[in-house]
Amino acid sequence: MLLTADLTAVPVLVLGEPAAARRALRRCAAAGAEVRPVAAPEQLRPADVAGAGLAVVVGEGRARWRKALDDAGARVPVVHEPAAREGGRVTLVGGGPGAEDLLTVRAVQALQDADVVLVDRLAPAGAVAAAAPGAEVIPVGKTPGHHPVPQERIQDLIVVHALAGKSVVRLKGGDPYVFGRGGEELAACAAHGIPVDVVPGITSAVSVPGAAGIPVTFREVSRMFTVASGHVPFSEAELQHFAGLGAAGGTLVVLMGVGTLPHLVSGLVRAGADPATPLAVVERGFTDRQRSTITSLRDAVEDTARAGCGSPAVVVVGPVVRLATAERNAFLAEVAAHG
Amino acid sequence: MLLTADLTAVPVLVLGEPAAARRALRRCAAAGAEVRPVAAPEQLRPADVAGAGLAVVVGEGRARWRKALDDAGARVPVVHEPAAREGGRVTLVGGGPGAEDLLTVRAVQALQDADVVLVDRLAPAGAVAAAAPGAEVIPVGKTPGHHPVPQERIQDLIVVHALAGKSVVRLKGGDPYVFGRGGEELAACAAHGIPVDVVPGITSAVSVPGAAGIPVTFREVSRMFTVASGHVPFSEAELQHFAGLGAAGGTLVVLMGVGTLPHLVSGLVRAGADPATPLAVVERGFTDRQRSTITSLRDAVEDTARAGCGSPAVVVVGPVVRLATAERNAFLAEVAAHG
Repeated sequence: MLLTADLTAVPVLVLGEPAAARRALRRCAAAGAEVRPVAAPEQLRPADVAGAGLAVVVGEGRARWRKALDDAGARVPVVHEPAAREGGRVTLVGGGPGAEDLLTVRAVQALQDADVVLVDRLAPAGAVAAAAPGAEVIPVGKTPGHHPVPQERIQDLIVVHALAGKSVVRLKGGDPYVFGRGGEELAACAAHGIPVDVVPGITSAVSVPGAAGIPVTFREVSRMFTVASGHVPFSEAELQHFAGLGAAGGTLVVLMGVGTLPHLVSGLVRAGADPATPLAVVERGFTDRQRSTITSLRDAVEDTARAGCGSPAVVVVGPVVRLATAERNAFLAEVAAHG
Repeated sequence: MLLTADLTAVPVLVLGEPAAARRALRRCAAAGAEVRPVAAPEQLRPADVAGAGLAVVVGEGRARWRKALDDAGARVPVVHEPAAREGGRVTLVGGGPGAEDLLTVRAVQALQDADVVLVDRLAPAGAVAAAAPGAEVIPVGKTPGHHPVPQERIQDLIVVHALAGKSVVRLKGGDPYVFGRGGEELAACAAHGIPVDVVPGITSAVSVPGAAGIPVTFREVSRMFTVASGHVPFSEAELQHFAGLGAAGGTLVVLMGVGTLPHLVSGLVRAGADPATPLAVVERGFTDRQRSTITSLRDAVEDTARAGCGSPAVVVVGPVVRLATAERNAFLAEVAAHG
């Protein structure tokens, strides 16, 4: 059973060969447990078991540890975890849209195995403290008044720590491969022969519209969606392409697009998009301060300026936006009549 | 600390008002624990605590439970979980691309709170048994030799169980809103006044290419990607649109597209796409039998027929496919030279 447990002052048996168990030992100690390490099943004594509240079996030999625990009279929850991996490797982890509980179980396990964690501004940093209390944490995102660490420097840090034998986790917001520059980090590691695993994350492109009640696809309404970065203004060719997406009933999702929104909406209309096309700006998805501003291409500039929309936000353009409005039922009836 | 613990034969204190604790009681019993329920802190006796291996505190009153546990001399891991929610509600949960550990923590918690779970064919069914061992499980996906349950019938089942006061989880493969028909299920619940939460999931559209080493976006190569369903053949207008995406350097991702692949590739070439455009078919992502077939628009029909490609699979079209091939380094050098 998956549990999030408070181990403060709990005697915890950490069972396994010391090298394999080194991260479990560090993590339990950092979580406030009273750690009792035992290297091999034949060394387990009743005194170790007395009063213990949890057994963490690291690596192989589960059956032998189980028998030793039974023989010693232990009736405690037993957690199995893999041996700490050899260092000198990197895991690129998608942290999802910001809420800590939208990390995947695999992402939590990767954090638990980390010596070093490099964290983005939009990644759920609190999750690092919970899952990897003993790891070295290096913030590489923008903080108020400071510039972000340049991408090349991030790649250098990843490579340097991995070459030093550390188990490195690069925790990124969203998914590593959706404008996350995970491909570049992968390539930098490959150039140094460093093995890399990639753990996918919940992308904001789909989840943040969803949190605002906007499905990016909907039967009979939108059969496709396009995700683009609005970090710099779109070209005329791109705007033409997006206008064609709208004509086909597709949904356009723009990340990092609040700054270039006026350019986008005027470009789309110039390229032939219907000015009445619904548009939503969803700010700060999955936080207490999540807010949707729903408007149209025609009114987007005025409405978002009046609302004071800012980053981080996801922009959604297309008929599916109507599913998040009071006219939803009328819209669904209309769809059903044509379906 | 997040743990997956074996509770077989472990005495577990389940602490909280019986109605609030009803799902924790059922879950711990189904997991093989020796369950010791206590309704209120002042009722906790040293005999309850003697030999206990875990305390699950349900709902409010953490501080009072903590004090009662300390007074009774308990030094066990303490898990806090929210009170079982009132029934009569529905949670649409994205189960991700199939691997159980690619569920989010929030999805696991939703399963833990479920009375009834309706499971898709492509959702990680094993996770249900682990997270919700006491829940009623209703498979609604296609099984060999059987037709899938029609969408309308699934919606009826969700509504009927919710109206009967159950806490219903609808566990779907991928993300509920990426061709998952989550929007329709949401609308069906709304029509009956049933409250619905949506838990996003890792979409196969991004994660399965990633598992095959293909980032859907890559700086200087692909600034956007489009996701479409190939369940039925694309229209000429859609094929024209996709050809334009390729011209702009974007990536096309097609789900459920193995059956209509010949139609897609001939249509793209007819619409002006370069026949040399790389194409990958990634089958059975995140399983032991994951396989990538990498080819081009020109050779895709012949190569995928020879390989015997089948569902489930994700089709990726665009230059980013080269990042998963032996020519990757040459490609990266080429990109860097133009960047």
